[in-house]
Amino acid sequence: MGILSRRSRYATNPIREDDDLADSLRRKGKKVIRLSTGDPPAYIPTPSFMIDAYVRALKEGKTSYSRSEGIWELINAVIGRYKRTYGISLHENDIVSTQGISEGLHIMNSAMINEGDYAITFKPYFPAYASMLNLEGGSFLFEQYHEDDRWSIDADEVAKSVKSIKRSPKGRRLKYMLLANPNNPTGTVLHRPALEAIVDIVNENDILLISDEIYDEIVYNGAKFTSVSKLAKGMPHVILYGASKNYQATGFRIGFMIVPESDRTSMKLKAMFADYARSRLSINTPAQYAVAEAMNNVKEHNKAVKHLVKLVSERTNFAVDLLDKNPFMTTVRPNGAFYILPRVDFKGLKLKNDAEFVSKLLIEENIQIIRGSGFGAPGHIRLVSLAPKEILGHAINRINAFCERHAKQ
Amino acid sequence: MGILSRRSRYATNPIREDDDLADSLRRKGKKVIRLSTGDPPAYIPTPSFMIDAYVRALKEGKTSYSRSEGIWELINAVIGRYKRTYGISLHENDIVSTQGISEGLHIMNSAMINEGDYAITFKPYFPAYASMLNLEGGSFLFEQYHEDDRWSIDADEVAKSVKSIKRSPKGRRLKYMLLANPNNPTGTVLHRPALEAIVDIVNENDILLISDEIYDEIVYNGAKFTSVSKLAKGMPHVILYGASKNYQATGFRIGFMIVPESDRTSMKLKAMFADYARSRLSINTPAQYAVAEAMNNVKEHNKAVKHLVKLVSERTNFAVDLLDKNPFMTTVRPNGAFYILPRVDFKGLKLKNDAEFVSKLLIEENIQIIRGSGFGAPGHIRLVSLAPKEILGHAINRINAFCERHAKQ
Repeated sequence: MGILSRRSRYATNPIREDDDLADSLRRKGKKVIRLSTGDPPAYIPTPSFMIDAYVRALKEGKTSYSRSEGIWELINAVIGRYKRTYGISLHENDIVSTQGISEGLHIMNSAMINEGDYAITFKPYFPAYASMLNLEGGSFLFEQYHEDDRWSIDADEVAKSVKSIKRSPKGRRLKYMLLANPNNPTGTVLHRPALEAIVDIVNENDILLISDEIYDEIVYNGAKFTSVSKLAKGMPHVILYGASKNYQATGFRIGFMIVPESDRTSMKLKAMFADYARSRLSINTPAQYAVAEAMNNVKEHNKAVKHLVKLVSERTNFAVDLLDKNPFMTTVRPNGAFYILPRVDFKGLKLKNDAEFVSKLLIEENIQIIRGSGFGAPGHIRLVSLAPKEILGHAINRINAFCERHAKQ
Repeated sequence: MGILSRRSRYATNPIREDDDLADSLRRKGKKVIRLSTGDPPAYIPTPSFMIDAYVRALKEGKTSYSRSEGIWELINAVIGRYKRTYGISLHENDIVSTQGISEGLHIMNSAMINEGDYAITFKPYFPAYASMLNLEGGSFLFEQYHEDDRWSIDADEVAKSVKSIKRSPKGRRLKYMLLANPNNPTGTVLHRPALEAIVDIVNENDILLISDEIYDEIVYNGAKFTSVSKLAKGMPHVILYGASKNYQATGFRIGFMIVPESDRTSMKLKAMFADYARSRLSINTPAQYAVAEAMNNVKEHNKAVKHLVKLVSERTNFAVDLLDKNPFMTTVRPNGAFYILPRVDFKGLKLKNDAEFVSKLLIEENIQIIRGSGFGAPGHIRLVSLAPKEILGHAINRINAFCERHAKQ
């Protein structure tokens, strides 16, 4: 018998697959430009008022295990944040803190998925959604974001598809629909009517909706964000949230699973998520104090996030303008998060697909980006638009030159 | 179909099961003495040189995602620590950092266990070993630590039992043997000959040995600790380690999975553990710098751990002396870690078992301890001996009075 489990083959992450190669290039003295991870503090520092709160917690000796679901100060800060931002009244037991959304995905899938179960999500999608589901024996049934409609959904198409899934044998094993808004990797925000249509569909078909809203404050270019929690009106749903993006604190590793409603399904889920949290004791303690402060100090946070969104929108638009000069790229201009997902015209290039594009680009130009196929979007590449314009501009000019060099004839 | 998975029922933790009740007592103004978690900084502060390193990392902006397997500084610190302490030469790829040993247990079991697989451990055991195995569809076959032999093993008995398991149909689905030394909850250290016998047994039967050695510096009362890595000589094994106990940094949540050897099984495991680490991005970044410093600054660490072991040994011995005055308790005196596992004479008490003992003690005396049945040791209770003598003494005097009050006739 082999030592590894069958499921272990799903422990993959396209976002990190070239890290070893990039590291080995760096060790050879190459300067690798990293446009591969959505990591704000790599280019835009974590706000100092949060660092100060973190330091204070350390100096006050807040270094024990914490309450498994999260310290009360943090739980109450999340309650305050959702009241202020969306007018939603959360209770203490609605919130469980996790080591980033990654751990939340693991806990959710372990809590819900039996071997052979299904879930629905939309392509393109964040890869951990699939790996964490697959690791528990589940598989995705995919709906589609339409690139030609600015990565929005066709509500009628989704309604028909979901109804047909529910009527099929798979329908009995369907556990949830997972949505990411604003989206990674497309960088787009769903219009409210599209979101309302989705809420209607899951309501009619009695499906649990999970909404990853970790980028909810990072919207620009005129977009407006709507939280599922505003539309739910008693419908069971889970909000995934965290400190990594809006609060520029990826390395703190603080995420949340929020179950706002009180129906029977929601009550079961929130109790079970707490049990899972207890089974692994706790997350990092002092970081929780920093994130509590980040949410409670509204004035400082608003200043910081305003600055972040300004930089992100400028950099993203600047990058898209440059990519638009590349005759082999077509890009839907993002209006949320900090990702760009250009479609590459491989018919015009001597590169066969996005995987070859990305690995050649890393070796030849020392620029690290991610293949779209890792997100269920083959033929695309994903860039992160967090770097300053000098770096972004330099990188995209080299990407454009790289395409010219690999053009057919 | 219910929303929860079948496996989710295993997401339990007896160590945290009374936390809600204890919290609600505190909210009513009661002062609850917590002897329930092995949490050094709750009573003995994290050394200040580690806090300083943590603060330095934060002020230097080390707040991005880190390398998934751990920052190089930390990996190299672990390499240095094992070289210095045990003369073992680890390589960079042998080490993966995790959110405490808890996450390591999750990753290991997900990486190895198929539904219906088995593993071997010894009773009494740390409860997360079982929950993390059960959550992946595996079950334990139990060997026994013998209380009447100071919680040691009977090597002949184990050899016979393991051989018979290997010959049975279960033998084909046997994935590993898991050992904890020094042990939680017994607080005892295995003699080197016992450990050598175990290494021989797993070698002969071709079983992967996993050794949880997180308390390896916390030994006293004349005990000597031996690391499995010193005895392995090419045999595949995994060492579980972490910063929580020796370094008094539970709330940092930094653990390690170490695979020191280079046989085929070991190579597969270390590559797979890295894949799992990548699939969840990273652990808390600034805490890794603090733990790197904790391991690199040998002088400061040695001073701190010497102080810790002195306090732990004094407090443990003091507590056992007091428990020995209780006619309903029999206690094997610990010589490692900071746990005490007295056997309770329920024939003499009007309490029916350890669960009733523990919950009545919490309600009547506001002292939180853990039932032995949570560790596979029914009829016992587990106390943590980290509190100062005033608190420990006060608590145990009340435990003794509680027993008198509940004595038969």
